Parts: sequence; C-alpha cells; structure tokens
Amino acid sequence: MPDTADGPYDPFAMIRATTGPELHAALQGVRDAGGAIGFVPTMGALHHGHASLIETARRQCEAVVVSIFVNPRQFGPGEDFTNYPRPIEADLALCSDLDVDVAFVPTVEVMYPAGSETVVRVPELSRHLCGAARQGHFDGVATVVARLFGLVRPHRAYFGEKDHQQLKIIERMTGDLAIGVDIVPCPTVRESDGLAVSSRNAYLGNSERKQAASLHSAMMSALTAVRSGERSVTLLVDMIRREITAAGPCDIDYISIVDSETLADIDTIGGHARICLAVRIGSARLIDNVAVDAPDASG
Amino acid sequence: MPDTADGPYDPFAMIRATTGPELHAALQGVRDAGGAIGFVPTMGALHHGHASLIETARRQCEAVVVSIFVNPRQFGPGEDFTNYPRPIEADLALCSDLDVDVAFVPTVEVMYPAGSETVVRVPELSRHLCGAARQGHFDGVATVVARLFGLVRPHRAYFGEKDHQQLKIIERMTGDLAIGVDIVPCPTVRESDGLAVSSRNAYLGNSERKQAASLHSAMMSALTAVRSGERSVTLLVDMIRREITAAGPCDIDYISIVDSETLADIDTIGGHARICLAVRIGSARLIDNVAVDAPDASG
Repeated sequence: MPDTADGPYDPFAMIRATTGPELHAALQGVRDAGGAIGFVPTMGALHHGHASLIETARRQCEAVVVSIFVNPRQFGPGEDFTNYPRPIEADLALCSDLDVDVAFVPTVEVMYPAGSETVVRVPELSRHLCGAARQGHFDGVATVVARLFGLVRPHRAYFGEKDHQQLKIIERMTGDLAIGVDIVPCPTVRESDGLAVSSRNAYLGNSERKQAASLHSAMMSALTAVRSGERSVTLLVDMIRREITAAGPCDIDYISIVDSETLADIDTIGGHARICLAVRIGSARLIDNVAVDAPDASG
Repeated sequence: MPDTADGPYDPFAMIRATTGPELHAALQGVRDAGGAIGFVPTMGALHHGHASLIETARRQCEAVVVSIFVNPRQFGPGEDFTNYPRPIEADLALCSDLDVDVAFVPTVEVMYPAGSETVVRVPELSRHLCGAARQGHFDGVATVVARLFGLVRPHRAYFGEKDHQQLKIIERMTGDLAIGVDIVPCPTVRESDGLAVSSRNAYLGNSERKQAASLHSAMMSALTAVRSGERSVTLLVDMIRREITAAGPCDIDYISIVDSETLADIDTIGGHARICLAVRIGSARLIDNVAVDAPDASG
C-alpha cells in the first residue's frame, strides 16, 4: 500500500519525455485547457534548491515541467562537464515525489541537432562577475534556455537567486526576444550553517565543507557593517576577503559588490546593491550572493 | 462608391499597431479562434517582391501581419541607414490594398527598449557571402526577426529567395531556438529584364538601371553553360564576372557558387548549388542569386 502521507504521490503520473514531439504531446491537454505551464530548467543532481523551485511552480501552475540536461555549451575547456554528477534515477524519483507532470530529459542530439549553431548572447550582463572568468559560459546558458523555452513554451519559469547573474541574463534575454515567459526568481536555499545549496557542494571534503560556510558568514558580516553605516565597497570587500581566507586555503575568483540590475561595479553602497562572490575550495567552485539592504543609502 | 474590382478592399479593415500590446490586442480575436497568422517582416519601401510575399500569406492564413521597421542594427557604419527610403504612407496604402489585417510599425524604442542588448547569432551561415563584407549585419537581422517573431507570434513567416542567405539564417535560427514558426520561402520577383526587384533599385540612375540587368543575364548564361556540361566553378564565376563587367562600371563584392544549404564555397557543380552575387552599381549595392539546376551532376 503506497504511502500517501507526503501528498498526492503517484508514480504513474509523471511522464518522461526525451524529444520535442513527446514533450508537446505530454503538454497538449493542459495547453488546450488553458492551464498555466510552469518550467524548472535544471542540469539534474537535484537538491533542496531545485525542490524549492519545483514546489513554487507546483503551487502556481496547473502543470509543472522539469528539464534535466547537462548542457555541454555552458562548460568551458577544463571545467567539470565530464565529472558533473548525473544521478538520473534519483532525480526522476525526486521529481515524481514532488508531483512533477513532465520530466524532460533530452539527449545532446535533441538539444543540438546536426547543423545547430545559433548563439544567444547578452554581452553586457555577461561580461561581469562569473562571465569574466568563464568565457562563453553565459552564451551557453542563454542559448540553451532560449531553446528550452521554445520547446516547453511555459507560461512561467523558475530560477534561483543563487545564480543571480544567470537570473538577470535570462530576464534580459526573455524580455529582449519577447519570448513571453514570466521569469520567477526564487530565494536561495541554504544549509543550516548558511552555505548555499549547490550540486557542486558534493565535491567538498569534510573540512572543506565546514570551511565553505565562511562564504555566507563573511557576507553576513559585511551586511552587519553596512547596517552600522559602512558604505565603502573597498572596505567591505576587504572585510569579506579576510574572513574567507582566514577560514582556510581557497582561491578567490572574485568578491564584488555590484548594482543588482546592471551587475556593474559600484564604489559606494546605495540603491540596489548586491554582494557576489565566487571562491574555489578544493575542487569545488562555489558562488553565492546576497542583496545589500541599505535603507538609508539613498535617503 | 468604392472600387471593389480588385477584391475585398476596405480601408477601415487594416489596424495600424505601434506597440506590442496594440499588436497583441489586434490579433487576440484570430488567435483565440485558432486562425493561422501569417507574417511578412519588412523594412518598408514596399515593392512587387513584398506584394508577392503578402499575397502568398493572404492565401495561406486567416490573418496577415506586415511589419515595417528600418532596423538600425542591420546597417553597418557607412551603410545607407539614414538614406534608406521610408515612404510610410505609400507602404500602408499598399498593405491596405493587399488586405493586410495588421500593419505593425514600431519605433526604435519599441523594438529596442532601454537596456536591450541581446544578440542572436548564426555564426557559420553568417560568415559567408554578404556576411564577410557586412560585419554584424546578419546578427542584426537574426536578432530583430527573433524579437518580431516573439511579438507577433505568427504561425508562418514569409521570406524572399532574393535574400537567400538571410532566408537560410532565419530558417536555422528558428529551428535552433525551437521558435515554432514555419518559414515559407517565396520566389524572387523580377522586372521584365530579369533584374530582381529591390528597394535599393531606386538608387539606380537610368543607365545604371539598364546595366543592372547584366547581373541576372550573366547568371542565366552560367546556367546555360551548366546545362551544356560545364562543371568548373572557377570557369563559371569567370564567365559571370566578364559579362557583368562588360556591361559597365561596377564594383563586384563577390560572385560565388556555394552549397545552397551550408553556403560554403564549392569547386564543382553538383548537389544543391546556388550562384550568389553582390555588385555595386553607382550607389546601389545589388544582390541576387539563382539555384543551379544540374540534374546529371550527381548521376
């Protein structure tokens, strides 16, 4: 007898689609009925952060589609495309548990058929932060999301704030190309010590895992300093850097405080600012960000 | 009493939309009714070639949308953006005569709102032929068409074979991004002497206009040579070049025989080949192309 304590779990309800036509067939009914389709694009290795996106979509939409596709075009040379975790059975089980209607699991050939070559670029937003070190990464992200939006044709799509730059690029691309999908930002999900949940946390050893909490705690210290009146970005970034490096050996890609919308560097806290950072601990490149709440900055 | 001899002409039937919301409102009825929407994107200065596209759309679709937008992003520095003809009243009258349902005439600010920066590129198809001399031209074309497709959401869109490279790029972009619009290629419309109809023919003086017929006649001579057994691209291109330069002073940008799908140069006639050329006569840069029919080439 199935355990129904967690909700309307039905292992037979979820459709697994591999191709565009299978996906369209699976969604035709809800589309014809005028139901809202919510979409959560992922690279799999699903965790609590993805679950939170899916749960939000489930509350807001008649049908929920989750795509699982490790997109080769958003990995640079020497990045972890080959080693990226691919626990597909566990991912599908989680989707089913969360009452997903359609899991879209395309092959590389479905996403990039022979001759496929179109690139979608958002050059200004892409040149900051992670884009500076990861050449072509955000072209790969924008391109795959544009194609996924075309295949799924959702009404709403759900993206985590943890990838703030990605979120801004997708919002921009969707607006610029009039794609007609509402982009719904969702709060970063964190472990109890503040570490942002990420598929790449799996690369961390035990001591590295403990050390990684310094990313969030250092940003929190900076927010406390801002609340106490500190406005100098240089001083705040130094403070964050000292706290992170004090926690253990690491390689800081960047610690930046930027305008939350344009992602351009700022000198002084004010308006809508955001602390963004990327730090490598062991073999894991971790990113995180927090909004800077400075209510008196513009007053 | 109105003259109805030409068909269901009704000057009150055509809606002129300037913004996305106006466009959506104008099309809501036909969309709700499940009618097919046909779309002809243009830069205005409408001529018989455009009329042919519109007439084809009219026959195939319940609603016809024509956009008129001189797209700044597809003109390079020193090109004729400022001088490009903009006879908007005549264009709207022609659309109305052809029973267009909606003329979409956006401003630059509607097409590219502040902060707009997304670029759609089809890099391989764009590097050949006109793309080699016109850096960024096809990025501008692919980007504006992607946004127009998003705004109009047509079922079918109509493009002339005269701009063969543009047609191939749009087909590729539409497929790669799964935009879900059927691209309908339409034959080149020609003047009685063979000159392809083009908005840029207006730049030609009287003697230049006569000379310009050499572009088509030279390609026809090459087709005759192919039918007689000639297979050398080098010899055929030389033949075309001699005939065009013999007709008068001109500046040949390129005369190429390429694979019709990949647009890559070929050495020997065979498969699906295409003669493509761009020649400047006076201040007019003229392009044209013809399919090469070599039934025995692969036999």
